[in-house]
Amino acid sequence: MKHISLQEINEWDRFYRGNFINCLSGFKSATLIGTVKENQQPNLAIFSNIFHVGAQPAIIGFINRPREAAPHTIANIERTGVYTMNLVTEGYAVNAHQSSAKYDLETDEFLATGFTTQLVHGVEAPFVAESKIKYAMKLLEIIPVRHNQTNIVLGSVTDVLIDKDLVSEDGFIHLENADTIASLGIDGYFTTRFLSRYKYARAGEPVVKVV
Amino acid sequence: MKHISLQEINEWDRFYRGNFINCLSGFKSATLIGTVKENQQPNLAIFSNIFHVGAQPAIIGFINRPREAAPHTIANIERTGVYTMNLVTEGYAVNAHQSSAKYDLETDEFLATGFTTQLVHGVEAPFVAESKIKYAMKLLEIIPVRHNQTNIVLGSVTDVLIDKDLVSEDGFIHLENADTIASLGIDGYFTTRFLSRYKYARAGEPVVKVV
Repeated sequence: MKHISLQEINEWDRFYRGNFINCLSGFKSATLIGTVKENQQPNLAIFSNIFHVGAQPAIIGFINRPREAAPHTIANIERTGVYTMNLVTEGYAVNAHQSSAKYDLETDEFLATGFTTQLVHGVEAPFVAESKIKYAMKLLEIIPVRHNQTNIVLGSVTDVLIDKDLVSEDGFIHLENADTIASLGIDGYFTTRFLSRYKYARAGEPVVKVV
Repeated sequence: MKHISLQEINEWDRFYRGNFINCLSGFKSATLIGTVKENQQPNLAIFSNIFHVGAQPAIIGFINRPREAAPHTIANIERTGVYTMNLVTEGYAVNAHQSSAKYDLETDEFLATGFTTQLVHGVEAPFVAESKIKYAMKLLEIIPVRHNQTNIVLGSVTDVLIDKDLVSEDGFIHLENADTIASLGIDGYFTTRFLSRYKYARAGEPVVKVV
């Protein structure tokens, strides 16, 4: 097993370092974020650094890169206060990846990447019709990270669209049954297979499978 | 497709809501965080809300639940300023899950959950010997989330331990070749299968696979 020092990491080519560090923290959620531009056109872009912050209230966060690098989604969210998050399925990995391209402000990224906008009464931001699990968000707060100018965007869930069959009796969502993919690094996509669920762990007691 | 309103979510039983909302945001990274207690004993606990913040400097964040619910890891990190993050492999999913149990301060969670501590010169926090991909972190900042008292913990990578064979020529890490698992919700674990990598996307150009 190789021990890599920070000095060595800092000496790497930036593309090598970008791939390596992005992969190091493990699998992420491949998620398309839908917003509305000032000219009312829909905007769509893929994000992967999504995290759960709390269930009550239901708060989910994501990382938006520095504004110079990824300006549109965050500007739209700031202006309108709403956005949708749409989980990516295996059959649409190519389309989802294409949404990471830098489009000019006049382009409708839904059209350009082969997705269909889905509008839901009461939600200003567009959903991805092809997504089987998606939710609308209301912006809570944008926290700038002073170490590198990325932004932590926190929002609260306002609406969920989901096939009922995907939800277990106890609320667990079997994402693999919707062909939901995981993301790795900057450009990697993975299918998943259910391994197990385990009951609430207690000190000194054996782990028990949820069946 | 069912449209679930926030009102409906708020009326759910809290365990159902916890499972549902934790799953909604998608796959996460199953990661064991190793720290040192005040009495110098090692501490170990599983976390899943891990996110990439930047590659240069290499910054990775994680969510620590409110201090009453999960006090040990964050207190150790605050006191020592260092911690390790160890990716979980398929064969150790049960042990990793067991580390979520509430142990008293006198218990060595490595011992209690069947993991081996691995000490590396220059790193005060213990690694998980059984982990094939692991890294040491220096605390940068703890950002309290005012909406629900969780904490966003940001740190910078100082050391990486990894099998060299896992790293591709361009720095991509094939985590699936190390049997690294993904996490879903509070208690779900998944194996993964490589689907594809795609080259840097450009507007108006087709998506091309990385081969």
